[in-house]
Amino acid sequence: MYKLIHEDKHTKARLGKLVTAHGAINTPEFMPVATQATIKALSVRDLKDCKTQIILSNAYHLYLRPGLEIIKEAGGLHKFMSWPGPILVDSGGFQVFSLSSLMKITDDGVEFKSHIDGSRHKFTPEGVINIHKALGSDIMMPLDECAHYPCEKDKAELAMRRTIEWALRSKRCQAPKNVPGTFLNRQLLFCIVQGSSYLDLRKQCAKQLIDIGFDGYAIGGVSVGEPKDLIWEIAGFTAGFLPHDKPRYLMGVGEIPDILHAVNCGVDMFDCVIPTRNGRNSVAFTRNGPMVLRDSRHTHGHIPIDPECGCFTCRTHTRAYLRHLYKTEEILGLALISLHNVYFYAKIMTEIRQAIKLDKFNQYKKQLEKTYK
Amino acid sequence: MYKLIHEDKHTKARLGKLVTAHGAINTPEFMPVATQATIKALSVRDLKDCKTQIILSNAYHLYLRPGLEIIKEAGGLHKFMSWPGPILVDSGGFQVFSLSSLMKITDDGVEFKSHIDGSRHKFTPEGVINIHKALGSDIMMPLDECAHYPCEKDKAELAMRRTIEWALRSKRCQAPKNVPGTFLNRQLLFCIVQGSSYLDLRKQCAKQLIDIGFDGYAIGGVSVGEPKDLIWEIAGFTAGFLPHDKPRYLMGVGEIPDILHAVNCGVDMFDCVIPTRNGRNSVAFTRNGPMVLRDSRHTHGHIPIDPECGCFTCRTHTRAYLRHLYKTEEILGLALISLHNVYFYAKIMTEIRQAIKLDKFNQYKKQLEKTYK
Repeated sequence: MYKLIHEDKHTKARLGKLVTAHGAINTPEFMPVATQATIKALSVRDLKDCKTQIILSNAYHLYLRPGLEIIKEAGGLHKFMSWPGPILVDSGGFQVFSLSSLMKITDDGVEFKSHIDGSRHKFTPEGVINIHKALGSDIMMPLDECAHYPCEKDKAELAMRRTIEWALRSKRCQAPKNVPGTFLNRQLLFCIVQGSSYLDLRKQCAKQLIDIGFDGYAIGGVSVGEPKDLIWEIAGFTAGFLPHDKPRYLMGVGEIPDILHAVNCGVDMFDCVIPTRNGRNSVAFTRNGPMVLRDSRHTHGHIPIDPECGCFTCRTHTRAYLRHLYKTEEILGLALISLHNVYFYAKIMTEIRQAIKLDKFNQYKKQLEKTYK
Repeated sequence: MYKLIHEDKHTKARLGKLVTAHGAINTPEFMPVATQATIKALSVRDLKDCKTQIILSNAYHLYLRPGLEIIKEAGGLHKFMSWPGPILVDSGGFQVFSLSSLMKITDDGVEFKSHIDGSRHKFTPEGVINIHKALGSDIMMPLDECAHYPCEKDKAELAMRRTIEWALRSKRCQAPKNVPGTFLNRQLLFCIVQGSSYLDLRKQCAKQLIDIGFDGYAIGGVSVGEPKDLIWEIAGFTAGFLPHDKPRYLMGVGEIPDILHAVNCGVDMFDCVIPTRNGRNSVAFTRNGPMVLRDSRHTHGHIPIDPECGCFTCRTHTRAYLRHLYKTEEILGLALISLHNVYFYAKIMTEIRQAIKLDKFNQYKKQLEKTYK
């Protein structure tokens, strides 16, 4: 399902195409986050404007609200939220560990209390795959155990072993391929490399997962509080062991310098709440760095965030207006800045792909790092 | 600037066209409210979808935030908010009396403290017209004194006399007509009939304002707590004294039965926050009455709010999805339901105009009153 199209001559950056049941995506690509079946404040029409290729959603959140029954009745997540393109769905393992009250973790799975109403639930690898089947995820992320940072090595190793075992059980539970008349046979299953900050564990985990064989390989358990250098080291090191002919996904990352670094190491996919979360906080990304629109210096800014940007917000509105909306707590302001940021990220990824195609990723990276480092 | 096109044979309902500096509007029409230079949660693109002809904004709010200097720099309110169509701007007299801490009212004007930061300000009739000039309002509402309800007659009469005097001063301050090279000469000035619930005062006020002569006549001081029947009586009675060849505007109204009644009495223009405020509260207007989307009975509603509605929300999303967005406090839900409601109101007004054209307003009113009474 993944085709490697071109490798940059001077870096490890890769140009590829990943085919899913709801369309193909060009990689490297950044996935905006639709945790609760919506990119916060944006409509599916806005996403078309942003040329969004793929979005990310979350099994934990959707399982709790609205619940699987409702999404199944709707005909799956795509129909429920009216998004026709590809969706990668995270298992929510990370949310179980970070958001809910974790009650118990065993080799069988995790028991937790909902962060919403305290109700008790259990996730197993098989249960999570069944959630993906109900949702119709184009790309399924299996249940994994994400170690905290910092983490003692024996605990990190235990979490890694469980993650591998759970990935294996997820694969066994995956619908058999080539079943005619169902879209389930086209649901891709990725796996997640864990191992905390221990590079030997990362290597061991990658190799064992490759032996099992998956449609794609994610690097998980990063961006959990460790220093930036360490994220880059883990991502680069781990990517070096991943199969050439499969997509590589760095989970929960990120900021533009992180993306540049990881693409440089051969990573293909990213997700992060930054474009929308920062947008709701009045921060717009631009060629010249982040712009804080609530700042008083934009009071008289009667020009767009970026006069050369092609997004609806920049084609239509000025900084002064956006600042006014933010100061008066108007919902429209959050939506317009989020839209710009999602567009900006998509544009950067398009430029990255273009640069790789021309074997000029290194130059492109250096250029952008003048602003984002 | 107003052309009466057709009068319904069986009621006083009127079909008309009002030409403003930013385009013509067909009347009767409902104006969605953009208090702070945005229809809450909707973009100007959404308004185009809703076939919005004219919006309403508010001098009091814009004067305080972002302030006139910024809007003047932007080239006026239309450019500031990127809305190319007509804008009626209320003086904010009502807000001075209801929202701010009113300090002092004299024949000269009103002194008040801002509801935002407590700063002191003074509005005079001339000052308000100058605000309108800065904003570039297509239709200017003059400063008036809005009596509370209930109100003793001597106080109501005093407020009425001031309103007339202030309307006269507003007219004197209005830019001279036919000044080439400026849009100011095309700013229409309406006046506001006051008189509280005293019909003789209403009549007297209307007659004196007509003697002065304005581009349009508003009925103000209604929908301030009086019983529904009384609103209808005041609106119907007052409309009977207003010039045939000028538009008539019932301020701050309203609900669909109120609109139907007032159109029936010959009123042409309306405004109210109901479509957007109710939308943000998950209430959608439909042919079958208001639909409360947060209700659990919509949990499994895998159909649009109204399958026959042509709005973006109904073309794209289901009740179950909208309920999910509301329950998970997603901004998109508020925007989508507001959009539907603004569209619905525009559609109702289009149907009202069509019915008048065919001399069938009475039938249309009766039909809609089966649901909205």
